[in-house]
Amino acid sequence: MVTNDVLGVAHSLLLKTPDLRDDHMHVVSICLFVFLLCACIVFGHLLEENRWMNESITALLLGLCTGVVVLISSNGQSSHVLKFDEELFFIYLLPPIIFNAGFQVKKKEFFRNFIAIMLFGVIGVFISFAVISTGSWYLFPKLGLNLSMRDILAIGVIFSATDSVCTLQVLNQDETPLLYSLVFGEGVVNDATSVVLFRAVQSYNFDRFSPLEDLQIGCNFLYLFSSSCILGIASGLISAYIIKTMYFGRHSTDREIAIMILMAYLSYILAELFYLSGILSVFFCGIVMSHYTWHNVTENSRTTTRHSFATMSFIAETFIFLYVGMDALDLDKWKTTQSSFKESAGLFGSLMCLILLGRAAFVFPLSALSNYSTKSPGAKINLRQMIIIWWAGLMRGAVSIALAFNQFTQGGDAKTSKQATSMVTTINIVLFSTIVFGTATKPLISWLLPPHLRSNYGDSAGLSPKVSLDVDFHMPLLMDTEHDGNGTNDRTVISQILHGLPRPQSIGMLLTAPRSTIHYVWRKFDDAYMRPMFGGRGYVRLMSRRSMDIPEENEDLEDEDQN
Amino acid sequence: MVTNDVLGVAHSLLLKTPDLRDDHMHVVSICLFVFLLCACIVFGHLLEENRWMNESITALLLGLCTGVVVLISSNGQSSHVLKFDEELFFIYLLPPIIFNAGFQVKKKEFFRNFIAIMLFGVIGVFISFAVISTGSWYLFPKLGLNLSMRDILAIGVIFSATDSVCTLQVLNQDETPLLYSLVFGEGVVNDATSVVLFRAVQSYNFDRFSPLEDLQIGCNFLYLFSSSCILGIASGLISAYIIKTMYFGRHSTDREIAIMILMAYLSYILAELFYLSGILSVFFCGIVMSHYTWHNVTENSRTTTRHSFATMSFIAETFIFLYVGMDALDLDKWKTTQSSFKESAGLFGSLMCLILLGRAAFVFPLSALSNYSTKSPGAKINLRQMIIIWWAGLMRGAVSIALAFNQFTQGGDAKTSKQATSMVTTINIVLFSTIVFGTATKPLISWLLPPHLRSNYGDSAGLSPKVSLDVDFHMPLLMDTEHDGNGTNDRTVISQILHGLPRPQSIGMLLTAPRSTIHYVWRKFDDAYMRPMFGGRGYVRLMSRRSMDIPEENEDLEDEDQN
Repeated sequence: MVTNDVLGVAHSLLLKTPDLRDDHMHVVSICLFVFLLCACIVFGHLLEENRWMNESITALLLGLCTGVVVLISSNGQSSHVLKFDEELFFIYLLPPIIFNAGFQVKKKEFFRNFIAIMLFGVIGVFISFAVISTGSWYLFPKLGLNLSMRDILAIGVIFSATDSVCTLQVLNQDETPLLYSLVFGEGVVNDATSVVLFRAVQSYNFDRFSPLEDLQIGCNFLYLFSSSCILGIASGLISAYIIKTMYFGRHSTDREIAIMILMAYLSYILAELFYLSGILSVFFCGIVMSHYTWHNVTENSRTTTRHSFATMSFIAETFIFLYVGMDALDLDKWKTTQSSFKESAGLFGSLMCLILLGRAAFVFPLSALSNYSTKSPGAKINLRQMIIIWWAGLMRGAVSIALAFNQFTQGGDAKTSKQATSMVTTINIVLFSTIVFGTATKPLISWLLPPHLRSNYGDSAGLSPKVSLDVDFHMPLLMDTEHDGNGTNDRTVISQILHGLPRPQSIGMLLTAPRSTIHYVWRKFDDAYMRPMFGGRGYVRLMSRRSMDIPEENEDLEDEDQN
Repeated sequence: MVTNDVLGVAHSLLLKTPDLRDDHMHVVSICLFVFLLCACIVFGHLLEENRWMNESITALLLGLCTGVVVLISSNGQSSHVLKFDEELFFIYLLPPIIFNAGFQVKKKEFFRNFIAIMLFGVIGVFISFAVISTGSWYLFPKLGLNLSMRDILAIGVIFSATDSVCTLQVLNQDETPLLYSLVFGEGVVNDATSVVLFRAVQSYNFDRFSPLEDLQIGCNFLYLFSSSCILGIASGLISAYIIKTMYFGRHSTDREIAIMILMAYLSYILAELFYLSGILSVFFCGIVMSHYTWHNVTENSRTTTRHSFATMSFIAETFIFLYVGMDALDLDKWKTTQSSFKESAGLFGSLMCLILLGRAAFVFPLSALSNYSTKSPGAKINLRQMIIIWWAGLMRGAVSIALAFNQFTQGGDAKTSKQATSMVTTINIVLFSTIVFGTATKPLISWLLPPHLRSNYGDSAGLSPKVSLDVDFHMPLLMDTEHDGNGTNDRTVISQILHGLPRPQSIGMLLTAPRSTIHYVWRKFDDAYMRPMFGGRGYVRLMSRRSMDIPEENEDLEDEDQN
């Protein structure tokens, strides 16, 4: 194995220089991580054709192997190369991943399923939290683990946080758009809900239960949710406005790109500064930037931002999985826990069952509720899809680990036996769920939803491709095309004629499709007020093309890519 | 001022929550820095037309203003928002700057002036070091500052390290290519030499002077220099080989970009791991990557890497200057130093004179030496150019600050009065030289070298554009075009005919131009062995175009941009 050599060198370097300073130790671990990241990319590429593997699992396994090698080469003393650092995770690794998700998400799908996503991501977390907490409170004492009420509730939150990172890799946006938008959208909202709920649990006063305090938690959540969204949207709009007004591209492409990156990060870090949810902020900032800002920059900047955001996100994801794999073998934690193998297995098994149960308890009823509320057949969720939603959201990932580190360790070290047992169980569940559910999701999808059953609008097994085409014609307003512009330019009219898309023909149709109405109102508002101010597709480009004589390129291809 | 509000909020937040945890303090400072970076970009853009300003000075002044605001809002207690962290600088900020410089440097110019660059960057540092150390040893005791021999020598090194970052902004690669390649090339080599010399001073045994030990330093330098270069070149070649062989673009553009970034960083961090010069490594890695790897990736990756490397470098540069500006007002240092104003001014003045003298002492003689050794009139340095080289290299920057922090502080705090005085003087000189020499360089160039005196090959005041065109025709081999390919494809022949460039016609011509001969041999070797193995311009693209039917685009424009 190649890693062996490098590790050997790194380790012998470590052993040979006892007066090695701390910062050089840091260099060694960075070096190892960068090397492993390269190895992950190469292996991930080689295993691309394999239906069972994906990048996350490759990274996880490579991390595990490295852990074993470090453990052996240090004579069983340590498998740690880098201490888990909440700050590293929450301040540097998570923002690019979530921002990129918002930036690349298909906005059409996301907003079409907005109600279902909110149901899953908010109500779902509370249901899952209730199931897991109650179950743990009932089962754990029987398995020899007596935790405080606060720890029990914390465990409920920790295992309700799904892993949005791994979801991105097992579901394909193009093959199963409905499932992708539901499960991934849920993941993002779920992250935010979990973090808010976790903070509430940590600060809850257990001495006096009061309905007033519970109400306060509810209000607090609403406040956090709305202000985080507003913050994200505001920074997106400001970036669009600055770039549109100052037209940076005139002097330097790099400034445009830099300001996009910095404003996106600013939305995250400002949210963290005011104790809001940075995840929600940066996600909405990504959506707004892809709708306005991205269209205001030069052609080169557009290519660069799209790919460099994806690359940053990719590197951060791989890093997280690599780290989780390496951390699994942390001997200190295994030594501190005093549970027998039987007890550990019991804990692991019962928690796993609770996770399965907790998720089932909200996916099926809430899907039914969502189906009941929606009129459009394309947005309905059938049983096969429910099973996939249930299954694909079972993975637990970096957010769970980060929350567990926060609750059960002091500066990264578990002090008591109970804490160590909780940490070890968390890591086991994250590893197991990622590997098992991660590998099995792709085959499950191709078994439950063979390609011929997938239509444009998700699966909707009953709908033939023909019928789904009809649906397309009945819902022209939901399509993210620019054909109902308010006449600011002639090209929209021309392209309308060219594409032959019908305009909304009667008020009656809008009444039967309430979501379409919202969308129609939004489009009108967008065209009348937002786009003249903040730019956006077709808007700035047309101006600049007229004034600068840039030759026209194939816009449609690119637009399809983006939306 | 806008910053005022944010700072007010940040500060009131700080004061209102006394139980604020350390990591939240960190969030506050990141937030402030990201905001200031955005402000720098906007102001820098607005001041673009101003001939006296540049981005570095904008950042420096903005940092100073912020320092004042923080100082006032904290009632004169602190101007520190972020502690200067050597690790942050050397591990995260410097690598992207130097890598980008290598990646974007005009290779043709760089290698044409290789001898002059090495003279300036290696011998120059030793001369400047000798002048400044001797001067300080003679003058400082008279100004009331008694430093140890080691500190005196350290000061000699600290003030011999020029600032390659600021040079990039005051000299224009397209307007004055000769000067740019000389001053910037010197800056990179100079950084490496200074770091090596600094380490030698820190570990030198002053009890026993021995010529053997001096010889050892020399050998050590040669070893460091060559092994760092080899490491950088090797990682560049490996990245080219991996990307060419595996053809990542087939599956994902992001993987290509990720592997380029990671391999570049690996070359830096591996060099640091083995106590080599990461700066040299990553610089040569950048050169190799732009010659081979960059041509092996897809069209989108090419655009993305070029712009995203430039953006990363730009953000890192701005960050450094912002920081240096903010650090200038550190009250703790000013309080610890016990020198009177007169003494401080004396120290500052004498050091400034020594810097001017030390640089003059090598620029003029070594330029003459370089002129003597070169036959080609285009590469000769005239007096006006010498003055600009002398002037543009007088700026002292982040490397000086980082070395001074290493020598005179313990964990960022100056403990004794002497140390505080040295630190304060260093910061003053960096601020003064950056602002004064930085603002004055552009006007000086336009005064000494008005546009009509600049030819393609630098200034060479005597050469009219006509003559310099002739020089182009006499030195076809030095041009970084691919027209002497060894016949592996027909397109080279066609483009040769199209461009009408002559092939080398006689051995005699090669003998009269020895550098051309080296270049010719290199080209032969490159075409026969390197490019079939590692890809490169025209090589991989042709293959992929044939096999994938990608339409041909305008290659020449892009190639001109790149080289």
